[in-house]
Amino acid sequence: MARRSLHTPAPDAAALRARLDRARQAAAAADTDALVIAPGSDLRYLIGQAGGSFERLTALVVPADGTPALVVPKLEAPGYADVPTEALGVELHTWVDGEDAYRLVAGLLGKPGRVAVSDFTPALHVLGLRDAIAGAEQTLAGPVVRELRMRKDATEIASLRQAGEAIDRVHARMAEWLKPGRTEAEVGADIAAAIVAEGHTEAAFVIVGSGPNGASPHHDVSDKVIEDGDVVVVDIGGPLPDGYNSDSTRTYVLGTPRDADVAETYAVLQRAQRAAVEAVRPGVTAESIDAAARDVIADAGFGEYFIHRTGHGIGLDVHEEPYIIKGNALPLEPGMAFSVEPGIYQPGRWGARIEDIVVVTETGVEAVNNRPHELVAL
Amino acid sequence: MARRSLHTPAPDAAALRARLDRARQAAAAADTDALVIAPGSDLRYLIGQAGGSFERLTALVVPADGTPALVVPKLEAPGYADVPTEALGVELHTWVDGEDAYRLVAGLLGKPGRVAVSDFTPALHVLGLRDAIAGAEQTLAGPVVRELRMRKDATEIASLRQAGEAIDRVHARMAEWLKPGRTEAEVGADIAAAIVAEGHTEAAFVIVGSGPNGASPHHDVSDKVIEDGDVVVVDIGGPLPDGYNSDSTRTYVLGTPRDADVAETYAVLQRAQRAAVEAVRPGVTAESIDAAARDVIADAGFGEYFIHRTGHGIGLDVHEEPYIIKGNALPLEPGMAFSVEPGIYQPGRWGARIEDIVVVTETGVEAVNNRPHELVAL
Repeated sequence: MARRSLHTPAPDAAALRARLDRARQAAAAADTDALVIAPGSDLRYLIGQAGGSFERLTALVVPADGTPALVVPKLEAPGYADVPTEALGVELHTWVDGEDAYRLVAGLLGKPGRVAVSDFTPALHVLGLRDAIAGAEQTLAGPVVRELRMRKDATEIASLRQAGEAIDRVHARMAEWLKPGRTEAEVGADIAAAIVAEGHTEAAFVIVGSGPNGASPHHDVSDKVIEDGDVVVVDIGGPLPDGYNSDSTRTYVLGTPRDADVAETYAVLQRAQRAAVEAVRPGVTAESIDAAARDVIADAGFGEYFIHRTGHGIGLDVHEEPYIIKGNALPLEPGMAFSVEPGIYQPGRWGARIEDIVVVTETGVEAVNNRPHELVAL
Repeated sequence: MARRSLHTPAPDAAALRARLDRARQAAAAADTDALVIAPGSDLRYLIGQAGGSFERLTALVVPADGTPALVVPKLEAPGYADVPTEALGVELHTWVDGEDAYRLVAGLLGKPGRVAVSDFTPALHVLGLRDAIAGAEQTLAGPVVRELRMRKDATEIASLRQAGEAIDRVHARMAEWLKPGRTEAEVGADIAAAIVAEGHTEAAFVIVGSGPNGASPHHDVSDKVIEDGDVVVVDIGGPLPDGYNSDSTRTYVLGTPRDADVAETYAVLQRAQRAAVEAVRPGVTAESIDAAARDVIADAGFGEYFIHRTGHGIGLDVHEEPYIIKGNALPLEPGMAFSVEPGIYQPGRWGARIEDIVVVTETGVEAVNNRPHELVAL
């Protein structure tokens, strides 16, 4: 009948209350009368519980000026029993099948001029709210909430460090699994089990791209048998029980690389990744980190083979702000956490990527992944 | 870096092409110029692949009059390699970071008057498309796509039968796990493993509600120790590899029920569930099935304890149209599949629910779950 709800470690009520207060202030600063936050990471960030819902509306309503309210289908309310609504100053409003939950939300808001919905609110609810809150401009809450979420506090950074250590332990064991004669899928299944064994709640993604498959950045696994001489991209991660994610890529080679250009090309990639990490410090822009990696690769003549941005923020989501991409002039600040993961992809031949999660510190950068960056021969 | 994409059994190209054609016709009939379908079950229904995406737009664009197009981030395109785009007459459009995917979609559509987005499209993309396709009315694709999806063909019904048999095999083994002295969570973990062992790709939900917990319809599992005399609601299911879901509830009792009212109340529930199943046939309304169950329960004086609708459609989603709820005057047709799952919940004491998935046939009804409906004493 229902998806499992999440009963998981959450920050204490004081920390959550401070976040809710900052969300209200950020909404006001963005000329937004209210945030409407659907289940997901934004909700988990604000009330400690991600929730989960099918077609019935669950939403945290945060007026810029007023009392926050959690609107929940009555029969899903027990799943929110752990939310310290009283300590958070959040009113609980339940509704039952047959009632109009969108009108319930509209009633809480009066006559707002602008209402922001969280970025991953399903269209069903986006348009339901649009019609119920007639006359209000509908915008995204992402730009408001990301102002909070992309500046991690000490507890969040500690969580990312733990996640980094956990996934580093998995990479450290790669020789147990990555062997010629096995398929990518077989290796991937072993890695997935190790990701869970090392403390993650699930293996959210397992990419084992061997030989030509490594040249497809979002390849996952396949029935291809891994051969001696294959270069293999292994990009893995998942959430810890507190919701914070790991994500790290290393590139391995089985024996001696088949292709003669691997060593030289990989050296370019390693320089590019190091240059980007070393460029990270407060005050520089997100796009400058992208450029730091891209320039090294382009100068070496491989520009056309680096076909994605350099990185993405990480926290309760695997991909979140800040994005490390050309055009993002956001100045980095202490507490921002993101991946630095340039790649060079030789279509039809082989590919390589190196990915660390890094955190901006007061003076520079801290990497939470610390496995060797060399091409690791197994 | 990326979520695993789904490489899974899909209908053949001819079946998919027929669905795309019907989607076009249904869009035209709904005065809608185009459907924009994000990753998820609707996409899986139409092209055989659910996809998966974070913040980059992936969408199937289905003009009522024109060529369908699959818009995919270039680095996620390999995940769609199994989609028979040529046989489906679908154009593939890839885009790279830095390009505006919403403008790309807008460019495919000309000057539409009305564009429908799939119900679970994230707000991020809903509002991105709204702004890029200026002047068009934005509506939900759900009402269009559900016209197709809620009428299952023979292959889909066969899939639901298989799913029903798989979850029935799990219920049949309940005595192995459900014993006094064990926690709900321990029992739930065993059930979850069995759900996978019996052919599901995951245990999407496992509710083990013992004693008072059974009175909370969306309880999942807890650390409560199951005791002799407890009535236990077990509501379980998940998807088979082809994407079609199981969902079945049975209520068990450990030894002799602690509460004196269990036998009599459960008998009412059993009559209600049977009455609702027996009422299913082509031409009657969805709400009449809800009423068939509710009337029995209300007449026995338990109306206030049946706090949810009687059922939900099921297929590629666990919850989909048609909903079996007061106010839904939809006439049932052959091929519609849904749950019939009345419950009686005595707050703080105990609860019970009986749930079968049924399919409307040409002349009546077929249940895909066939475990005994009695209160099973273990």
